Amino acid sequence: MSYTESLQRFKKNSEKICAINYTESILHWDASTGAPRKGAPMRGESLGFLAMLNHEITINNEAATDLDTLLKNIDRLTDIEAKMVKKAKKEFDKLSKIPKEELREFQMLINKAQHSWEEAREKNDFSIFSPDLKEIIGYLRKFADYREPENHPYNVFLDDYEEGMTTDKLDKFFETLRERIVPLLKKITQSKVVIEKNFLDFDYPLETQRAMAPELLNILGFDLSRGMLKESTHPFTMGTNIDDVRLTSRYDKNNVISGLLSVAHEGGHALYEQNIDRALFNTTLATGTSLGIHESQSRIYENNIFKSQEFINYYYPELLKNYPEQLKNISASDFYKAINRVEPSFIRVDADELTYSLHIMVRYETEIALINGTLEVDDLPEFWNKKMEEYLGIVPPNNSMGVLQDVHWSHGLFGYFPTYALGSAYAAQFAYYMNREINLYDSIIKGDMEKPLKWLNEKIHKHGSLLSPDEISISSCNELLNPEYFCKYLEDKYNKIYQI
Amino acid sequence: MSYTESLQRFKKNSEKICAINYTESILHWDASTGAPRKGAPMRGESLGFLAMLNHEITINNEAATDLDTLLKNIDRLTDIEAKMVKKAKKEFDKLSKIPKEELREFQMLINKAQHSWEEAREKNDFSIFSPDLKEIIGYLRKFADYREPENHPYNVFLDDYEEGMTTDKLDKFFETLRERIVPLLKKITQSKVVIEKNFLDFDYPLETQRAMAPELLNILGFDLSRGMLKESTHPFTMGTNIDDVRLTSRYDKNNVISGLLSVAHEGGHALYEQNIDRALFNTTLATGTSLGIHESQSRIYENNIFKSQEFINYYYPELLKNYPEQLKNISASDFYKAINRVEPSFIRVDADELTYSLHIMVRYETEIALINGTLEVDDLPEFWNKKMEEYLGIVPPNNSMGVLQDVHWSHGLFGYFPTYALGSAYAAQFAYYMNREINLYDSIIKGDMEKPLKWLNEKIHKHGSLLSPDEISISSCNELLNPEYFCKYLEDKYNKIYQI
Repeated sequence: MSYTESLQRFKKNSEKICAINYTESILHWDASTGAPRKGAPMRGESLGFLAMLNHEITINNEAATDLDTLLKNIDRLTDIEAKMVKKAKKEFDKLSKIPKEELREFQMLINKAQHSWEEAREKNDFSIFSPDLKEIIGYLRKFADYREPENHPYNVFLDDYEEGMTTDKLDKFFETLRERIVPLLKKITQSKVVIEKNFLDFDYPLETQRAMAPELLNILGFDLSRGMLKESTHPFTMGTNIDDVRLTSRYDKNNVISGLLSVAHEGGHALYEQNIDRALFNTTLATGTSLGIHESQSRIYENNIFKSQEFINYYYPELLKNYPEQLKNISASDFYKAINRVEPSFIRVDADELTYSLHIMVRYETEIALINGTLEVDDLPEFWNKKMEEYLGIVPPNNSMGVLQDVHWSHGLFGYFPTYALGSAYAAQFAYYMNREINLYDSIIKGDMEKPLKWLNEKIHKHGSLLSPDEISISSCNELLNPEYFCKYLEDKYNKIYQI
Repeated sequence: MSYTESLQRFKKNSEKICAINYTESILHWDASTGAPRKGAPMRGESLGFLAMLNHEITINNEAATDLDTLLKNIDRLTDIEAKMVKKAKKEFDKLSKIPKEELREFQMLINKAQHSWEEAREKNDFSIFSPDLKEIIGYLRKFADYREPENHPYNVFLDDYEEGMTTDKLDKFFETLRERIVPLLKKITQSKVVIEKNFLDFDYPLETQRAMAPELLNILGFDLSRGMLKESTHPFTMGTNIDDVRLTSRYDKNNVISGLLSVAHEGGHALYEQNIDRALFNTTLATGTSLGIHESQSRIYENNIFKSQEFINYYYPELLKNYPEQLKNISASDFYKAINRVEPSFIRVDADELTYSLHIMVRYETEIALINGTLEVDDLPEFWNKKMEEYLGIVPPNNSMGVLQDVHWSHGLFGYFPTYALGSAYAAQFAYYMNREINLYDSIIKGDMEKPLKWLNEKIHKHGSLLSPDEISISSCNELLNPEYFCKYLEDKYNKIYQI
């Protein structure tokens, strides 16, 4: 097969995959934003067809030959083409090394596990879910062995979500976090400072919350003419393509801040997808490069920006204008402290910025132990509760509020949780360099959100998947991921709030 | 190729086509109900990919062999399989006889014609659109010749929309309508009866209109748990599958009735799609059998039911409750007359129930003359205006309100308009038989909408595309389409309203 023919066919197939991805995204968006639940079977048929089609286009002898030819001629390719080929090769190996029949069985197990997990959580009975979880772990070990028999199985999954990440690196990363965050949390819980936050839960009309959400997106710099904001039970972002990036939020009448934080968080994801270089349009690189880098963009907008004293100072008049009664006698500083109050709690998604990483640490250590076989599934709840006590100082009253709270494992997602913590750490590192280079917090307090957005566009967003996480880190910060920035950020922030 | 293998592969391909159809529907729905306009290019790429895929699955040597084998063994097939094969064969012939390159050129011409038509209508300049229209007609003639050289070209297109329909039949159909409706309209315009309708255009809050719409759907018997109602510029219905049927309406603050009529009209389409037999799920027969039969369901709900004195009597308290001020001193009878007032007007979509068919007649005669070549495109505006004067007694003040008002021709749709008139006639015929068998109007005045729905389910809806329009007519009315019912219905209704 000639190089030119291979390249042409490879690019044509990549465009087909983009069309399939786009189509799947719209179907999922539709399902999450109002489609009748009873219509699920036909949607299932169609998604199944699209998945099969994707597999057919990706895994066949012709595609294998094309990839071989192109990898041998990698120097003749443009940067974009070369990266597309490498990404496709990774996907090819991932899908072609596992026997098709086992992939199918695993898919069926996952479908079953959704239900057993839901039931287990609802009935607070771990034993309903544990048989499926055991099977899932068995399959994952086998799959990792098919794919990279010499590698640590957990590394295989990590690399799917965060290119180049390994357990060695993560062990060190979490060790630093443990050493710095656990003592900080102890000091905070012993602090005499009392932070009032009752007013956050007053009555905040949903209409007002819904009207403020797109305005906040606008302030952050999101172009709503190339995207849309809706509501869904679980907020999410969907970058169907650079000109159509969608996000959702949810609003709680008795919580002034949760809807806004969702908008800031998903807005960060959405700004990433919306500002990818047009040169990557309709290629497989037109999306964020990794889960960790993606999460860094949501965290930087949610935590480092929105929850900063500077942003609250700038934004508070807007809140006062909309909620004059509810926020009477509350200062911007009171508000800032209230939304940053630290309190160990059982549920990860409700955790504050400081304890969040500790929740991830519990999951990381649990996953490693399960994959290594040093922990049996049956002993999981006990292990979980011990870790919770060790890091957060609290023990869940039941498994629904403990080991059964997250959906991820029932989806077969192992190695996914750590990317949340990586995101927080990347966010702090980017914020640090941004502040050094363009005075981030000066801009924020003036409400100039264009400046930080431009920095992020230039350093991170525009590259899409063209650069790896490590390459992004080096090119924007001149160093690899370094948890020191995150720890320092947390210490500075909370030492001040809690007068430590 | 063995019969069993052919059948298996044919059914598998049919399911793929269902998945593609479903996916295309969701993409179109998404585009029409809020997706950012700027995202159109990627949607275009994806729809193009899906269309190509559909073509690949439908037109190939294997599919041709399968169709041959199955047609030879048609007696061994179930009714559903046999009809699916016949439908697929028709589609195969339609697509395979026209050279692919010409189909592509035509598609490009159509895309161009959208814009030239829009511009022509906006600038009120027919000459902007006429070159494209000439080309479109040229292609249509050629395509008809490729497909069925012995048939009248217009018959070829008619049959695409209304199986079994011919110009001979339509000529007679419209002759009856002309002979009965034109004199009736003359009598009405000469009638001394004055119908007051100013109150229809008072201020009717959009919130109330939006709240009443799903309630009306509910009254008509639409199951909203297996569908959804939204808003769009042009109301439409989309039956993605039996468990997810979607419709839209639009609301006008200064028109109490247009939104409700849209809901009743689209609701009729939606009830058809929602009540197709489950045995047809995920087959190519799970949709209405023809445009004319489909339109009969929208017309019967909009005109024969909603706009009847009986339904207004039943529904009027609901209107009074919601609009006590606006409808003060207006009786149900006043309301009924107001929404049924006849007035010749220029725009088809705004026409009343009586003059509507005359608008269609103008289009039918125009299309026939264009396709036959007895009318040149350049003479079209004059022809149109003359016909308007002849049938409706009015001449459009300009081409935008005349020959340029409809989008259809720019889409290459010839032979489509007549199905609107067929729909009205079928509706009247079905209503007649329904009334004879189950006392339709007695049910309506009592608000029992389940009874007529059940009749329509049994006679029409459940069959999907399993029966042809003629078969539907015979099995439900024991006779073929007969415009007498429609003419009699109009005469009875308007003679009474206008005291003729």
